[in-house]
Amino acid sequence: MPNSTDTPSNDTPSNDTGSFNPTARSRVKRLHERGKYDEASVFAILDAAFIAHIGYVIDGQPFVTPTAYWRQGQTLYWHGSAASRMLRFQEAGVPACVTVTHLDGLVMARSGFHHSINYRSVMAFGMAKLVADPQEEAAQLDLFVDRLYPGRRATLRPNEPQELKGTTVIAMEIEEASAKTRSGHPKDDEADYALDCWAGVIPIHQVVGRPIADPLLKAGVAFPKGLAGYRDGARFDELLTTNMV
Amino acid sequence: MPNSTDTPSNDTPSNDTGSFNPTARSRVKRLHERGKYDEASVFAILDAAFIAHIGYVIDGQPFVTPTAYWRQGQTLYWHGSAASRMLRFQEAGVPACVTVTHLDGLVMARSGFHHSINYRSVMAFGMAKLVADPQEEAAQLDLFVDRLYPGRRATLRPNEPQELKGTTVIAMEIEEASAKTRSGHPKDDEADYALDCWAGVIPIHQVVGRPIADPLLKAGVAFPKGLAGYRDGARFDELLTTNMV
Ligand SMILES: Cc1cc2nc3c(=O)[nH]c(=O)nc-3n(C[C@H](O)[C@H](O)[C@H](O)COP(=O)(O)OP(=O)(O)OC[C@H]3O[C@@H](n4cnc5c(N)ncnc54)[C@H](O)[C@@H]3O)c2cc1C
Ligand SMILES: Cc1cc2nc3c(=O)[nH]c(=O)nc-3n(C[C@H](O)[C@H](O)[C@H](O)COP(=O)(O)OP(=O)(O)OC[C@H]3O[C@@H](n4cnc5c(N)ncnc54)[C@H](O)[C@@H]3O)c2cc1C
Ligand code: HEM
Ligand code: HEM
Repeated sequence: MPNSTDTPSNDTPSNDTGSFNPTARSRVKRLHERGKYDEASVFAILDAAFIAHIGYVIDGQPFVTPTAYWRQGQTLYWHGSAASRMLRFQEAGVPACVTVTHLDGLVMARSGFHHSINYRSVMAFGMAKLVADPQEEAAQLDLFVDRLYPGRRATLRPNEPQELKGTTVIAMEIEEASAKTRSGHPKDDEADYALDCWAGVIPIHQVVGRPIADPLLKAGVAFPKGLAGYRDGARFDELLTTNMV
Repeated sequence: MPNSTDTPSNDTPSNDTGSFNPTARSRVKRLHERGKYDEASVFAILDAAFIAHIGYVIDGQPFVTPTAYWRQGQTLYWHGSAASRMLRFQEAGVPACVTVTHLDGLVMARSGFHHSINYRSVMAFGMAKLVADPQEEAAQLDLFVDRLYPGRRATLRPNEPQELKGTTVIAMEIEEASAKTRSGHPKDDEADYALDCWAGVIPIHQVVGRPIADPLLKAGVAFPKGLAGYRDGARFDELLTTNMV
C-alpha cells in the first residue's frame, strides 16, 4: 500500500462540533493523513456500527471482547451479565480501548506492496466504569433496544426487576479518539501502470437478509412496520444511521 | 438473552485434529455451552475471516488495532510498516489477544432481556513476535496475497528489496484459543410466547460487490478468471473458505 500520495476520504467533517485532542496515545502515525480527530468524523463511524472490540488488561494480559455498544453524546455504553469477568473487572473504572471497524473494500494493486483495504475505523480511549444508578441503567438499556429497533421498547413487556439486577451496564466517556479511513482506488508505482495486471477495488458491505419469523411466533403477528428498513439486501451501516420510521 | 437452555451451534467439530486446553484465561464462563476449544471449530472461524482486532498493552494502556491476518497451522500472522508503533512494539515478543468476529444475525425476542445476536467468534492468545528471517517473511507475504487472491502472486511483479525491508511480519503461535457461537431463534420466557410481539432473526452477512476497475487500468486487461468467486452478492466468509479456482 502507498506511503506517499493518498486517497482522500469522502467524509466532510462539520465544524460545529468539537474535536478530540490527539496525544501520543491517539495520534495516527502511519499514513497520518488518513487520521481525523473531530467529533463529526468519529461519531459518524461509531453511529454506523453496532459491534465494538473492547480491549482491557487483567494482570498484564490483554483481552479483546466483541460486544454490542451504543453512544450517547461523548459516552459509549455496553452491557451484559453482572457475573461476566469483563464487566466485573470494568466496574471499578479501568482503562479501555474501544475499536470499531467497517471493512469497505479490497484494494487490488499492480504490486503486492500496494495492495490495501478500504475501511473506516475508530479507536476510542477512556476509563470504563459501572453505571451505578439503577434508573440510569434501565434508561440506557431502553435506548439500546430502540437504537437498533426504533419504537420496539414500547411494544415489549417491562423488564423484570431481577433481569435488571442480573444486568450490568458499563459507560466509557471518550477521553481521546481517532478515526482513520481509506477509500478509492490503488496508488501504484508510476512504472507499474503499464503492467498487464488487473487493478481496482472489490467493494464489501454488511447487509441484512429477509427477517425469519420464530417458528413459535404467535399466529397473525406481523413484522413491525416501523422496522421496514430491515429489508433484504439493505446495508446495515446505512440502516443504523437512517431514521427507519 | 437466555441464561438457561440454549441454541446449539451447527458446527460439527471433527475429532481428528487437536484441541486447545482452556485455562482461566481462555475458558468461556457465561453461557459456557456456547464455547469450544477444538482446533476444527477455532480454525473454521479464523479461516472464514480476514480482519482481526489485535489487543496489546503498552505501559498498562490497552490498544486494539484492526489488522488483516492469515493463518498457517497453529500460527497467526499479520504485517505492516516496519515503523508502525504496534509492530515495533510486538517484535520483541509480547502477549497479544487476537479476536475474530462474524456478526451473523440479530435475534429479536419478546422481552428486552432475551434479545441477542447470532455470531461466531474466536479469542486467541499467545506471544506476538517478529518473523526475523527475510526468506520466511517474503514467503509469508506471498501466502497472504494468495490467500485472498488465489494465483495472484504469480501475476505481480516481484517485491522490491526495499519494499520487504520496510515491511514487518509478526507471528503469534496460538497458545490458547476459545471459540464462541450462537445461532438460531430467540429463547423466550414460557409466558412471553403468548405476547403479540414479533420475534425471530434478521440475518446479517458480509457480501462482496461487483469489482470496480481502476480508471487507470491498462486497456484490455480483464478481471482474473481464477477470482470469479468475487461476484456481486457472494458471501465473503464463504468465499474465503472456498477453493475459488
Ligand atoms: C479493516 C482494516 C484492516 C487493516 N489492515 C492492516 C494491515 O494488514 N496492516 C497494517 O499495517 N495496517 C492495517 N490497518 C491499519 C491499522 O489499523 C493501523 O492504522 C496501522 O497498523 C498503523 O497505524 P499506526 O502505526 O499509525 O498506528 P500506531 O502508531 O500503532 O497507533 C497510534 C494511534 O493512531 C490511532 N490509530 C491507528 N490506527 C488506527 C485505526 N485503524 N483507526 C483509528 N485510529 C487508529 C490510534 O489512536 C492509535 O493509538 C488496517 C485497518 C483496518 C480498519
Ligand atoms: C458480535 C458479538 C456481540 C456480542 N455482544 C455482547 C453484548 O452486547 N453483551 C455481552 O455481554 N456479550 C456480548 N457478546 C459476548 C461476549 O463476547 C462475551 O462472550 C460475554 O461478554 C461474556 O463472556 P464471559 O463472561 O464468558 O467472558 P469472560 O469471562 O469475560 O471471558 C473468559 C474467556 O472466555 C473466552 N470468551 C469469552 N467471550 C468469547 C467470545 N465472544 N469468543 C471467543 N471466546 C470468548 C475467552 O477466552 C475469554 O478470555 C457478544 C459477542 C459477539 C461475537
Ligand atoms: C436489542 C437489545 C439487546 C441485544 C442486541 C443484546 C445482546 C446480547 C448479547 C449478544 C449477549 C451475549 C450473549 C452471549 O454471551 O452469547 C447479551 C447478554 C446479556 N444481556 Fe443482552 N441484549 C439486548 C438487551 C438486553 C436487555 C434490555 C437486558 C436487560 C434487561 C439484557 C441483559 C443481558 C444479560 C443479563 C446478559 C448476560 C447473559 C448471561 O451471560 O447469562 N440485554 N445480550
Ligand atoms: C493482499 C495483500 C495485502 C493487503 C490486503 C494489504 C493491506 C494493507 C493495509 C490495509 C495496510 C494499512 C494501510 C493503512 O495504514 O491505512 C497495509 C500496510 C502496509 N503494507 Fe500491506 N497489504 C498486502 C500486501 C503487502 C505486501 C506483499 C507488502 C510488502 C511487500 C506490504 C507492505 C505493507 C507496508 C510496508 C505497509 C505500511 C505502509 C505505511 O504505513 O506506510 N503489504 N497493508
